[in-house]
Amino acid sequence: MNNYLVISADCHAGLPNRQYREWLDPAFRNTFDEYQAARAAMEAELAERGLRNEEFAEEWEHENAEGLQGGWDAHRRYQELDADGVVGEVIFPDADAVTAGASAPFGAGLGATADVPVDLLMAGAQAHNRWLAELCSDSPHRRAGVAIVPIFDVDAAVAEIKRARESGLRGGILIPSMWQPYEPYHDAKYDPVWAVCSELEMPVHVHSGAADRASYGEYVGMYVAEVRWWSTRPLWFLLWSGTFERFPELAFVTTECGAFWAPDLLWTSDIVYDREHAAKKLGKQLTEHLSMRPSEYFDRNCFIGASNTRRRELARRYEIGIGNLMWGNDFPHPEGTWPHTKEWLKNAFSDIPVDETQRILGSNAAECYHFDTAALEPLAAKFGPTPAELGQTGEGLDKWADLAAAGRPWLTGKEALEMPVGD
Amino acid sequence: MNNYLVISADCHAGLPNRQYREWLDPAFRNTFDEYQAARAAMEAELAERGLRNEEFAEEWEHENAEGLQGGWDAHRRYQELDADGVVGEVIFPDADAVTAGASAPFGAGLGATADVPVDLLMAGAQAHNRWLAELCSDSPHRRAGVAIVPIFDVDAAVAEIKRARESGLRGGILIPSMWQPYEPYHDAKYDPVWAVCSELEMPVHVHSGAADRASYGEYVGMYVAEVRWWSTRPLWFLLWSGTFERFPELAFVTTECGAFWAPDLLWTSDIVYDREHAAKKLGKQLTEHLSMRPSEYFDRNCFIGASNTRRRELARRYEIGIGNLMWGNDFPHPEGTWPHTKEWLKNAFSDIPVDETQRILGSNAAECYHFDTAALEPLAAKFGPTPAELGQTGEGLDKWADLAAAGRPWLTGKEALEMPVGD
Repeated sequence: MNNYLVISADCHAGLPNRQYREWLDPAFRNTFDEYQAARAAMEAELAERGLRNEEFAEEWEHENAEGLQGGWDAHRRYQELDADGVVGEVIFPDADAVTAGASAPFGAGLGATADVPVDLLMAGAQAHNRWLAELCSDSPHRRAGVAIVPIFDVDAAVAEIKRARESGLRGGILIPSMWQPYEPYHDAKYDPVWAVCSELEMPVHVHSGAADRASYGEYVGMYVAEVRWWSTRPLWFLLWSGTFERFPELAFVTTECGAFWAPDLLWTSDIVYDREHAAKKLGKQLTEHLSMRPSEYFDRNCFIGASNTRRRELARRYEIGIGNLMWGNDFPHPEGTWPHTKEWLKNAFSDIPVDETQRILGSNAAECYHFDTAALEPLAAKFGPTPAELGQTGEGLDKWADLAAAGRPWLTGKEALEMPVGD
Repeated sequence: MNNYLVISADCHAGLPNRQYREWLDPAFRNTFDEYQAARAAMEAELAERGLRNEEFAEEWEHENAEGLQGGWDAHRRYQELDADGVVGEVIFPDADAVTAGASAPFGAGLGATADVPVDLLMAGAQAHNRWLAELCSDSPHRRAGVAIVPIFDVDAAVAEIKRARESGLRGGILIPSMWQPYEPYHDAKYDPVWAVCSELEMPVHVHSGAADRASYGEYVGMYVAEVRWWSTRPLWFLLWSGTFERFPELAFVTTECGAFWAPDLLWTSDIVYDREHAAKKLGKQLTEHLSMRPSEYFDRNCFIGASNTRRRELARRYEIGIGNLMWGNDFPHPEGTWPHTKEWLKNAFSDIPVDETQRILGSNAAECYHFDTAALEPLAAKFGPTPAELGQTGEGLDKWADLAAAGRPWLTGKEALEMPVGD
């Protein structure tokens, strides 16, 4: 059996904060200096308030001091991903998830919200996008860079999407998960964004980070409990408003929000669409603009960047859809699998069939992001893990047979056996 | 085997709208007349916009014309619940879920939000509470009435809770699911509410209804996709803020929000509490005010009024906790199981062990609401379904053994087999 061709659908890159200055439009450099000072004060306050585990941060950053430079250094980045068995990657902003030391200017990256004025968000986005294009130009077949694009100013967004694609960023765009106080993403004003992304084959991403922070007070647990929800929310806004009906080629990806929620979302949505018992009282307006079931749009238009995919999620893969799941190592974030990816993969995938493993670890991402797999094959042969290395003996696979046959049981009518697991 | 003692943890009662006038504080009657006129116009508009299935509403209301009077008529109510096999009930407001013709004044009931001034919400709540106390006085051992209590004005809320309990409403209180624009429910300002509810053994409820309607435009599907989330949200606000730590006797119930979400909520919360891999970077503030795991608070302080419990949810009962699930027929709403409850129960419970069935159908609710089961036994013997009537032959139960042993697998470390089903 060949080595797996592994593509990480969730990697991060970003310059150490100060170095972004030279990539910024000069008009924003003074504001940037002020922002950096305010940010340093905020970081100190976070530490003071006990929101961060300083001991862990120190240990992580000490143990991985060299590897973490792969967050911005093109050469070091190869070493780290090669060692992790990863030959292709989709690159999001913000390379340091502990102390936010390498993140896009003005908070334009993962946690972007409209608390920051739109012109600053866009200036920060463009600085990052310019630098990222250079990083990716070093090996465009391995690196699919995702451009940050705040889309509230639609004309500016469309221009930036075209510019970013032209500059070599082919991984698509990252939009803020939260639209407040602007129009919700079902609003027709955003149609030019969906149109240009469809045309240029640029997947649209949300990535976990933003949440309703103002409501949590000092309680970090509420953030953890909700953050995935706030970033998956645009999915059902696009779906139920018929955006995928109007833009059948649009690819929409939720990244690092987990995948465990997808089966119940599809179940509850499909049975409402099909006017199951509890939905009978709803009027025709519910579905008159939709020609397919929610799960059909999901299969056609949506991917899940499931990052560090858990056993509990893999056990639900037939309901989620084998073709919708994309693994990622979250390099260089500490909540990801780097630098121990092969060990994590062995723990999670040892009893998953090889063909399904290949789709989740690479083929689905290759399809979503148009990777040239022929160009990656020689690298995969050199660095990719083998089924044997993942402990895949080919035995004991029959435990999945009933589940595979049941698929999405609310559609097939088959009850089946699932593996509920805790990690 | 004895008949099951069935308690519906989700029933509704409400006067036809106009009849609430006489129960209102006279100071609010003119405002009520204006509100009713505005409401009639809004109802007409909803119909016009296709948000409601008029054909279904007409058919439902025609077919069940007499039974629906049980929504407010004490005598008719016995007939309907007896025929459904239900001998005890927990009574929420709003008896008509299709055309909203029997709902608490000023929208104070299920869908209450702070869009309505707090004094109007409280006036509507009190009118309903006074009437409901009378309905329940007819058979206090069968009827546990839930008082509507908007809690934003804490002093007024505490007074109303005491008054309601005094008047015989022992089912607890219903608070608005959404606190906006007031303080989130983790705020210490609400502590007097939690204190008095603990002291008087009044469970605190949220019930599905309210949602972020302003964001959905014309798209009903978004409402359906989110409404359960908005009503379960207070659960993790109370949990992560340590409210259950400070009020160990407080009972908190999420009603008609489904139960399917509970396992993943507990899983994601517990592993964060236990500082699993991805949570290592979070500071001590996350948990320093909590002495137990989230699932332990859930088991001690929380119940799910799971209403029309689905097979898919029953299959997850060992993760949810057998002791946390309370079934309900949602009488007299069309999305419930009335008037065909026995048929629904047979479809859902035929292969569920008898002892677990009894807990979910009645014993858990008896515990949560302090029903006098000795007083209800004679009624159960007369009206309750038997295991045989639910198709429970006692065979084939071993399919659950592994699942039962695994419990919450993220805590036990056991992988097991689950029944994922679609209905």
